[in-house]
Order: sequence, then C-alpha cells, then structure tokens
Amino acid sequence: MTILGQQFIGGEALKGANGEIFGVNASNGEKLEPGFGGATKADLERACALAEAAFRPYRETSLEDRALFLEAIADNIAALGDELIERCMAESGLPRPRLEGERGRTIGQLRMFAGVVRDGGFLEARVDPAMPERKPLPRVDLRLRNIAVGPVAVFGASNFPLAFSVAGGDTASALAAGCPVIAKAHSAHPGTSELVGRAVSKAVKDRGLPEGTFALLFDSGREIGQGLVADHRIKAVGFTGSRGGGTALMKIAASRKQPIPVYAEMSSINPVVLFPAALTARGEAIGKAFTASLILGAGQFCTNPGLVVAIEGEGLDAFLKGAAEALTETPAAVMLTPGIHKAYSEGVEKLGSHASVETLARGQEGGTLRGRSAIFTVSAEAFLSAPELQEEVFGSSSLVVRCRNEEEVAKVVDGLEGQLTVAIHIDEADHAAAAKLLPRLEETAGRILVNGFGTGVEVGHAMVHGGPFPATSDGRTTSVGSLAIYRFLRPVSYQDFPVALQPEAVKDGNPLKLWRRVDGKLGQN
Amino acid sequence: MTILGQQFIGGEALKGANGEIFGVNASNGEKLEPGFGGATKADLERACALAEAAFRPYRETSLEDRALFLEAIADNIAALGDELIERCMAESGLPRPRLEGERGRTIGQLRMFAGVVRDGGFLEARVDPAMPERKPLPRVDLRLRNIAVGPVAVFGASNFPLAFSVAGGDTASALAAGCPVIAKAHSAHPGTSELVGRAVSKAVKDRGLPEGTFALLFDSGREIGQGLVADHRIKAVGFTGSRGGGTALMKIAASRKQPIPVYAEMSSINPVVLFPAALTARGEAIGKAFTASLILGAGQFCTNPGLVVAIEGEGLDAFLKGAAEALTETPAAVMLTPGIHKAYSEGVEKLGSHASVETLARGQEGGTLRGRSAIFTVSAEAFLSAPELQEEVFGSSSLVVRCRNEEEVAKVVDGLEGQLTVAIHIDEADHAAAAKLLPRLEETAGRILVNGFGTGVEVGHAMVHGGPFPATSDGRTTSVGSLAIYRFLRPVSYQDFPVALQPEAVKDGNPLKLWRRVDGKLGQN
Repeated sequence: MTILGQQFIGGEALKGANGEIFGVNASNGEKLEPGFGGATKADLERACALAEAAFRPYRETSLEDRALFLEAIADNIAALGDELIERCMAESGLPRPRLEGERGRTIGQLRMFAGVVRDGGFLEARVDPAMPERKPLPRVDLRLRNIAVGPVAVFGASNFPLAFSVAGGDTASALAAGCPVIAKAHSAHPGTSELVGRAVSKAVKDRGLPEGTFALLFDSGREIGQGLVADHRIKAVGFTGSRGGGTALMKIAASRKQPIPVYAEMSSINPVVLFPAALTARGEAIGKAFTASLILGAGQFCTNPGLVVAIEGEGLDAFLKGAAEALTETPAAVMLTPGIHKAYSEGVEKLGSHASVETLARGQEGGTLRGRSAIFTVSAEAFLSAPELQEEVFGSSSLVVRCRNEEEVAKVVDGLEGQLTVAIHIDEADHAAAAKLLPRLEETAGRILVNGFGTGVEVGHAMVHGGPFPATSDGRTTSVGSLAIYRFLRPVSYQDFPVALQPEAVKDGNPLKLWRRVDGKLGQN
Repeated sequence: MTILGQQFIGGEALKGANGEIFGVNASNGEKLEPGFGGATKADLERACALAEAAFRPYRETSLEDRALFLEAIADNIAALGDELIERCMAESGLPRPRLEGERGRTIGQLRMFAGVVRDGGFLEARVDPAMPERKPLPRVDLRLRNIAVGPVAVFGASNFPLAFSVAGGDTASALAAGCPVIAKAHSAHPGTSELVGRAVSKAVKDRGLPEGTFALLFDSGREIGQGLVADHRIKAVGFTGSRGGGTALMKIAASRKQPIPVYAEMSSINPVVLFPAALTARGEAIGKAFTASLILGAGQFCTNPGLVVAIEGEGLDAFLKGAAEALTETPAAVMLTPGIHKAYSEGVEKLGSHASVETLARGQEGGTLRGRSAIFTVSAEAFLSAPELQEEVFGSSSLVVRCRNEEEVAKVVDGLEGQLTVAIHIDEADHAAAAKLLPRLEETAGRILVNGFGTGVEVGHAMVHGGPFPATSDGRTTSVGSLAIYRFLRPVSYQDFPVALQPEAVKDGNPLKLWRRVDGKLGQN
C-alpha cells in the first residue's frame, strides 16, 4: 500500500493538516480510502519558498541532466505498475485500456520533452557579433538565449488524470523549460496524484536536483490553489478545466502586483463541418464514425465533437441515420465524477428542452452516475439567434445545426467562439467550398482536421492543442506537443559580455552544438 | 505643404470631425499649424471594418509581396526628405542629428523585417508525416505554421516619433507578421504622424494591397484609443508609453469578451551596477560616460540609466566626481512636450526633497520648457525602505545608491522591479562577483550590458527590448529586433489535409524553401 494520503514538499512526503479529502469511486460514488490532508497556508509558503530557491540552480542544469530527469520521471511512472492503473480506474471511472494508453502517452510525452531539451532549439540562441568598424556607429556584440520564467503552478485536469495532471503536459513542458513546478492535485483523483507525485519526487532525489524542483499539494477548498496563483514567486500557471475555473485564475493573475501569464485550456465544442459531396458519398459512415468519437471516454475529451454543421439533404439524412443508430446502441458510461455527471445531465436536459431544439437520438439509459449520450438537432436560423446553444455540455452530447445553404453554413461558422479543433469532412468535389471556409476556420481554431475528429491528440512537434479564447486563455500557445515548452521561457539579451560570463548556449564555437541564428542566419554554428 | 491635418482610412486622406488637435513647438510651447481633426466613432468603426476585411487577403500575401511592401514604406519615408525632419524637430524638440539617425533606424527596421519575411523562419513550419503502420495506433499527418493574429492597434510613443510611432517597430513587425495595422497618432507629433502615415498609405496603394491594411487615426481625447483596444476586430495591441497608460490598456484588453494580448513597453529605470575593480581602475571615466548616457536626448530614452548601485569607496567617489563634473556643464535641454517637462520637473523636485536623498549635482539651468538634469545619492538602507525611490522620473535624472558592501548591493538588486536593461561595469577581478549577481539580473531584465549603458538599442536579431513587468506587460517578448514579429503570430495545426488545401509553407517538397522541423528535426527540407 503506497497511497498514504500524502503530499510532497521539498522531497518529503507529509500529510496536510488543513481538512481531509477523499477520492470517490466514480462508478458508485463510494468513498475511497485513505483520506488526503489538505495543504495549510504554511505548506503553501514552504513549497513556494523552496521552488524559488530551486529555480536558479535548476534552470541552469545541463541539458543532459534535465533530459535524464524527465526520463527518470517516465521510468518511475512506468514502475508504478498496476497499482496506478487500478486506483486511477476507480477514481476516474475510465476503463483500463484507455488508462493504459494514457499512461503510455504520459511517459511518451516526458520522453519527447527529454528529446526537446537535448535538441536545445528551444533556447533560440542567437549571436549578432560586434562590428567595431561599422559606420556611422560601431555595432555591439549581442547574444540571446531563452531562460526559464520561474516557478510554475500546474492545475491537474479531471479528464486526463495522467496525461494532463501531476506529471502531464504542463508539468513536463515546464520542467523541460527549466521551471520548478508546484502541482495542485485535482480533487477527483487524489490517489492517482499521490502515486505520480511520489514518482516525480523520487526522480528529483535520485537525480540530485534541488529539493524545491517539484511539489504536490492537495487543496481541501480553493484557498491553496488561488493562493498559489497569487504568490509572487510563481511566474506562470498551467491549467486545464472549466471556463469558470480558468477565467477565475486569469483574474487573480492579472490583478497581482506583477501580473503573470495563465495558460488555461478551458472550453471548446469542436465543430464538425460536413460538406455536401462527402455527405452524399458516405453520410452514414461519417455518422457512425462521428458517434464513435462522441462517446469516446464518455465524451469527456476537450476535443469532443459537440457541434455539427451541415446543409440539409439526403446526405445529412444519411449522416443522422448513421449517427443515431450507433448512438442508440451506446451503453451509458460512468463519468469522471458525480459532479460532472450531474452537470452533464442538467446540460442535456436544458438543451433537450430548448424550444428550438429537437432530440435526434439518445444512448441507452444506465444506472446511477452513468451519462446517457445524446444528439440533438436545430435549424441554423434558431442556432444563430440563441448564443446559449454554443455553451459546452461536457460529455457525450452534440448538437447538429441544419443549414439551408452554403451561406448559412458560413454564418454559423462566422459566429463561433474560439475552438481547440474544427473538423471538416470533404470529398474532392468539396475542395473549392472548403477552401472558401478555411481562412475563417484558421482564425477560429488551433487545429483543423480533414475527414477525422478531434479526439485523439497526437503528442508531436506539429501539434497545436490551443486556440483563441475561450478555447484557451492564450491563443498563441499550445499545451500539447513540443511547442508547449515556449510557454515557460523568456528571452534575455547579453551585450558585450566577456567570454567568461557568457552562457554556454551563446559562446563562440557553439559548445552545445545548437542550431543558432548568427547574424540572423540559421545554422549549427 | 503636405501637412493638412489629415488622417488615413481605407487609403483616403480625410480630416476628422471630432475636435481639433494642434502640434506644439516643443522649444517654446507655441501652437503649430495646421489643426488635426480627431477621429469620430464612425471613423473608428470604418477603420476597424476595413482592417477586418483586409486581414484575410493581407495575411496570405506572398512573402515576397509583403517584403516589397515593407521596403516601399521605407523608400517612401526616405522620400519625405527634410520636411519630415524639420516638422519632427519642431514637434519633439529633438535635434536634427538624432532625428536623422532615428529616421535611418526606422527605415533600417522596415528593411530588416523585409528580410525576416523573406527568410520565412517566423512561420515556424513543422511537418510530422503520417505513419499509417505505427502500433498501437497509426499516426496522422500533422503540419503546422504560424498565422497572423489579426488587426493590430499601435500606439505611437512620444519619445521616438519615428522609430516607435506610426511606422515604427510595432507597425513594422505587425505588418511583417501579416496583420493590418490601425495606428493611433501620438498627440505630441501629429504632423510627423501625418507625413509618415501618408508614406505608409501610399505604399499600400502602390503595392496593390487591400485598402484596410493600414489606417492612421487622431484622437482628440482618449475615447478613440480606448475604443480601438476594446473593438472585437482588434486582436493585439502595441504600446510604448507610461505605466499608467499601459496598465489602463491592459485592463481594457483583459475585460473584453475575448481578451487580447497587449504589448506595452512602459517603465524602466535601467539600473547600472558598478563593481569595485572597475571603479578603482576607471571610476571617473565611467562617471563621465554615465552622464553622457544620462543626458542623451534630454534623458528621454526608455533605457535611460535612472539608478546606479555601487559600494562606497574611492572608486565610487571618483565616479561621482566624473559624473558630477560632466553634468554641471550640461545645458538644459528642450523636452518632448510641455507635459513631459512639467512631470520631469516635479519628479526631480520630489526626489531632491526626499528626506533621505542628497543632491550630487545639477545641470545648467535653462529657459522655459528645458529640463535641468540631476544626479542624486541615497544610502542603500534608505533606498531599501523607500519603494517610491524606484519610480521612474522620465528625463535626465538619476539616483546613485551607496552600498556598504556586496550584500547590500545584492539586496538592492533583489528588490528591483522588472527592467528593460541592467548594465554592469566590471574588470576581470570583478568577474566572480558579477557571476554571483548575474542570475538575479537575468530574472530582472530583458538585456544585460557589460561596460556600457542601455541607451542605444541595436535593431538586430539578438536584441531584447523587453523585460518583466512593469518594464513591459509581457516579459516573454521584445518590441525591438526581429523577434518582435512573434508577438503577432499564433500557430495553427493542419491534420490529414489533402495537398490541394495545404498552405504552401507546409507542403511536401518545401516549395517556399523554408527552414522547417520535419519530425522535430530542423532542416531546409
């Protein structure tokens, strides 16, 4: 038994003394032992002080040391074995194969960032050598590199208890950048959090890193999480969760004496636009694939397809038939928490009882705490006059907007808020129409997919898991993929530095063998 | 006579009907003809609508077309000839050589961004090719590029009427990124603004670009500027000015339905840390060089050295002697505006009458509207207990903090707010002490200089003109140098796109010959 209700501060495991939190078995609502102690204000203070103390030595660890640290975390998570999967299944209600896959993704993500760190490209090293003879004025010697911004607060997500929680994408990219991390455990999976927190803590110790490099805190209310964002030693925040939660943190961060960036991934209904030729050719098959995406993980993906836009006709009828048939057979699924289940049920109820909305199909009824999937339809005209229909219903519910023509499709798309993804389904005959819509889609979403659905987010170099507000708080960034590291960096310029004081990254002779811009030209020199 | 009091909207020159603004001769306070009409709300609406309409075609102009546009602006500014310099001298009180230099810098900056656009590296193109055979799941085809964020509002700075105004760094980098620009003219140099605005407008027309690519508005109050930041079609803001002005715009931007980034360069006292061996070797010479930097442009540089930190001793005495002697001979200098002169005089008065502050030296008295330079001293102990002494006094005033030892220097540096620059003066014997302080300096400033002063900002690839709040609103960015373009970009990911719909930047075969990351590896392929 290695779940003891403990948090981690300065490499020590200790039980917080500020209230008690229990995990809940998602499938039946029963309390899971043991209780977890919430962090006190003194715990928060100690974690912040240690993170500040760790920052300078940690941000200047060698690229190789930092890569080995990330790999050690990955190894330690793998070594947690089945205890992690079983506890996570109980806490999240997610099935074993999904969580085994998510564990693989979490480990793979840490290893990818180890590669990103070794590559060193994120340092964006630049050298503009002096030109003492330049007229009318000589040019100084200028060298630039990125440095870590400082300690980062990470708020774990309920829907990815491994890949976007204690040692998920935010933590991995912040640690890769050279930032100590203080993670606030999500109360929906405290046991999972403790296990992973211990794995990270062990890696800090085994790799001989400063003890404040990582901390994990539990919060029995909201005081500790909010206090973390308000603390002057915290320099950036990573968050995945609701729009309400994200915007609350944005407000706290903006009203600090020194405002800091909040990277909040919040709300997206991930529109799917179906084009006529594709619908005619394979409407029913698209419908079935759509439903498969909709119900994946009980619809609890940030990239779940919550909106479909298409022109009425036989193709759309076939789509609706395929989607409805598949949905009708779908068993109700355990949701992440009783609270999420309640919000989902209420959201579906509200949508279904909207005057302009018709119910196309419902999944099977299930027992308590199980979400019953739903597909609704609405006319474009009604949709355009009811902004509330754009609100995310977190879970396997989607709304199909029936348009009369291409112009109505464009109008619906024009009215969309910022999104993580937009999917389009097209055949070659649709290319011209799709090309016309594409600029608007680029301005709306971080990722555009052809003939697929947004669920399934590849962790790679060309991934954007981001998008204009309210999809995220900062549409210039991504929280998945190697570009995520840039959220935790800032550039510093060194003018006329003697060699002895120059950072290795910008020294003549390129000792770190980085790709650098010398006088603006990229090269490995 | 080409100064007609006109603004530019949609390529048309027109006089605004919302009040009248006059330029003022900075050296005598006299009104300069003609009057400039302030923009009406209808003007603002029209400029925003046109910018929105221009955005899509403009952001997809070819790299070559965009580079030629930037070069055409540069040519048109050069062609304004002496009328520009003379009007600008009258409006700003800055001397001819300085403004000729600034014009060169403005033109050079536009040409540099033309080079940045042709290089295409800012697109950050990435390709992760599909792996259909990958187990357990096939990998999708993912391609990524940066796109422009949307129309940008630019607020010209009073202290760089050319290089940081209508066609300055913010405008050049936003246009380079593919963003239409609506510039709000600074009321301190309306004639200069009109001349440059006409040069940009002509380039838009001559290069056949959408008419909404650029607009210039005058504001007889604050309504138009604030309305611009609040307008939903504006997607980012560039600002150089006071802390009060910058934070006001940040608030407006954060409270929009869709918050947007504000890049405000605001407030910096640019500390200079003098180390013992350097002081001993050449204290007096450093003092003279310091005063030369302090009084440059009447001290009205964002990077003006407003604070000196050093350990007491003979070296510091020599520094103070050299600085004071040079200052005493300094004639009073015309300041940018009567308002700036007034604020400067009051700031100096307040500092000089502070209980803990002693006056070391004053420059010569001058006539009306001329700023009289000043150097003050204070003990570290008193400085540390009086946070108001860190407030910027915009102009040629500086405060020398006398420390008793290295620990006090570290304490003073530790207490500094975010800065654009920190300069250190060192000899080889100071390297160890400097290395100890360096991490803190990196965390405080965007640029660190050795044996120089922050005034004189090189426009290059390795320049950071930025820094943690309150130096700027966003310490992850720079407003000078080629990296400034990244402020106006966001990444978009394209999944499984047919070749016909892929942007050129990410197509197989690399038709734009960009440096790209393919599977994470940089190469020109």
